Amino acid sequence: MPINGSATAPATPVEVPRGLAGVVVTETRLGDVRGREGFYHYRQYSAVELARTRGFEDVWYLMFHGELPDPARRAAFAKQTAALRHLPEDVRAALPAIARAGTLSGPLAGLRTALSLFGASKGFRPVYDIDGDRRRADALAASAVVPTLLTALYRLGQGLDPVEPRDDLSYAANYLYMLTGAEPDEDRARAIEQYLISTIDHGFNASTFTARVIASTGADVAACLGGAVGALSGPLHGGAPSRALDTLDAIGTPDRIDEWIRERVLAGERIMGFGHPVYRTEDPRSRMLRGIAQRFGGELVEFAVEVERQVEAILAELKPGRELHTNVEFYAGVVMELCGLPREMFTPTFASARVVGWSANILEQAEDSKIIRPAARYVGAAAPEPVPAS
Amino acid sequence: MPINGSATAPATPVEVPRGLAGVVVTETRLGDVRGREGFYHYRQYSAVELARTRGFEDVWYLMFHGELPDPARRAAFAKQTAALRHLPEDVRAALPAIARAGTLSGPLAGLRTALSLFGASKGFRPVYDIDGDRRRADALAASAVVPTLLTALYRLGQGLDPVEPRDDLSYAANYLYMLTGAEPDEDRARAIEQYLISTIDHGFNASTFTARVIASTGADVAACLGGAVGALSGPLHGGAPSRALDTLDAIGTPDRIDEWIRERVLAGERIMGFGHPVYRTEDPRSRMLRGIAQRFGGELVEFAVEVERQVEAILAELKPGRELHTNVEFYAGVVMELCGLPREMFTPTFASARVVGWSANILEQAEDSKIIRPAARYVGAAAPEPVPAS
Repeated sequence: MPINGSATAPATPVEVPRGLAGVVVTETRLGDVRGREGFYHYRQYSAVELARTRGFEDVWYLMFHGELPDPARRAAFAKQTAALRHLPEDVRAALPAIARAGTLSGPLAGLRTALSLFGASKGFRPVYDIDGDRRRADALAASAVVPTLLTALYRLGQGLDPVEPRDDLSYAANYLYMLTGAEPDEDRARAIEQYLISTIDHGFNASTFTARVIASTGADVAACLGGAVGALSGPLHGGAPSRALDTLDAIGTPDRIDEWIRERVLAGERIMGFGHPVYRTEDPRSRMLRGIAQRFGGELVEFAVEVERQVEAILAELKPGRELHTNVEFYAGVVMELCGLPREMFTPTFASARVVGWSANILEQAEDSKIIRPAARYVGAAAPEPVPAS
Repeated sequence: MPINGSATAPATPVEVPRGLAGVVVTETRLGDVRGREGFYHYRQYSAVELARTRGFEDVWYLMFHGELPDPARRAAFAKQTAALRHLPEDVRAALPAIARAGTLSGPLAGLRTALSLFGASKGFRPVYDIDGDRRRADALAASAVVPTLLTALYRLGQGLDPVEPRDDLSYAANYLYMLTGAEPDEDRARAIEQYLISTIDHGFNASTFTARVIASTGADVAACLGGAVGALSGPLHGGAPSRALDTLDAIGTPDRIDEWIRERVLAGERIMGFGHPVYRTEDPRSRMLRGIAQRFGGELVEFAVEVERQVEAILAELKPGRELHTNVEFYAGVVMELCGLPREMFTPTFASARVVGWSANILEQAEDSKIIRPAARYVGAAAPEPVPAS
């Protein structure tokens, strides 16, 4: 129901590849993925280098403000976001009902509901009706509260009481603290922080696009994020770091790797955790996460490295020229397992970092005032046919 | 985090008009809008003729099944959908909290939350993981329950108890019944039914597109509908039938029309309820709704018709060649007012019918297995720059 002048005039049909593949829908200053180089970046910085040298709050600030914070801004931002971790009373009161509604629709369904409720409770306004500061405040509030929502829903689902956020901990340490009720050791907090940083954004994907389409109508930040969470929950998009770990479990022991993998590959099955549609090289996230896993060492890590080595060799032999390497799922699962995260929290943990990337995309989209609205071609029976008498 | 083989390989950048205007993203058998002819259709039938001759359930069946029902199928469908109006206990229990979270984010924020919760409660599954019958069952359950959710949230917001749905009433009559607690007279039930039919679908718009993008990832029906509700809530998309009525209120009396309108038009302001980006003729929905309003007659209707006459004359004089006519908002507001709907329920009522159209689009999209994922162009500072020491 668009109104006079507020929407596009009808345009001549433009033919494009299926699924809009390669169609440039927007310009962005947030980052990019260079598949041939095995490189991705946030703003002008290598994402992997950011994960190696910076904290989550630094990169969050970079995505929201366009530059890395100086020490004073970092301290202020950490204080500001820590204060935003606490739940409004009406949202807190509704979480048991949301958790009770169950997780049959997957672990992201609860986040979708809780974020929607949170936005309404905070009175989020349409992004076109407010200025950039107010938009950023809404996006910051949503990004900061997601770990509290996710960990509370998880604990309620386990019959446990939610754990109050602690303002003196970093985003990453507080995430693990709210999940387990215990302050994590430094190594685990840093490992999960590096994973979270590496996951904030990754080029233009279906959930990021969804967030931007909804933002282009001027809807509020919670409406945009809810749609993005929904898109991420789709099996063609979201993947699941737990699946790769399930594969390791299914293989069981190093002596079974070769037979197990060959059997699947020859049967035409996919090996979870391998292959990526964009990278023609090793996935830079995978390389980084392997390094993190190797800081911990131990049986699981040695086994994972051996599986990777053998799978790549078998794939190179059976599917020559395909360049199939581990993707982000493979070692992400290993790292999250090492950090003590339960498997059903792997995808939500991914989502908690990605909310920051979606939010940055929403803020960028809101500076444009052009609704994203393509066309469809009617291919049904010729119209009008007279409506038959009932 | 797309997985091997499940997503698109990177494609050569394709340049298209801003906002994807005119870009053909999909084929559809659901209907079309012919702006130059002032005509729109569902499947092969004129939407206006369907509204004139059929009930809401008939057209709902048409959109879901591709054909109009025979009498036996109509009866079975009416019985099936009436049974689906009732809320699961856990959703009912959560509605007061959702209503309490407030309506600062607009009347659709509550629907967004409640639909998300409903989908999780019913265990909706990813559309690619289930067969067509199960998908249709999920879409039917969501479409059938939306009036119950909307009217319950409205009444709770007014401090009233929700009214249980009645299985012996039609969709439209039950809608008014749940809203007011009183069985509506036949004329009002039929008027609102015709409005609802005319609102089920209307070409490819931003909310319909959002629903299809999310469906293309394989996400569940509630994830898709939640995103669509979010997109509809955006001011560039949703419009608001209550705004046109507010304009009538502001003008006040017939003798003030000319001065009030000229003043606004000369100041470059938009007149709410006039102009449409696609129709170059009278909006066929507007013509139909004016006819419905005139069945009731009375002071408001006469005043609206006179405002329409004078505005069109003034716009033809001051903006020659622009073809500015009333759009669907103008008489939709009048008809809903005549049917006793409170103004804050105008947009939700629109949404309740549109959920049927979105659902049909989701079902159609789910038959495709190609994710919708365009590209973005990075235009920020050259990367990589070394990350400065912190």
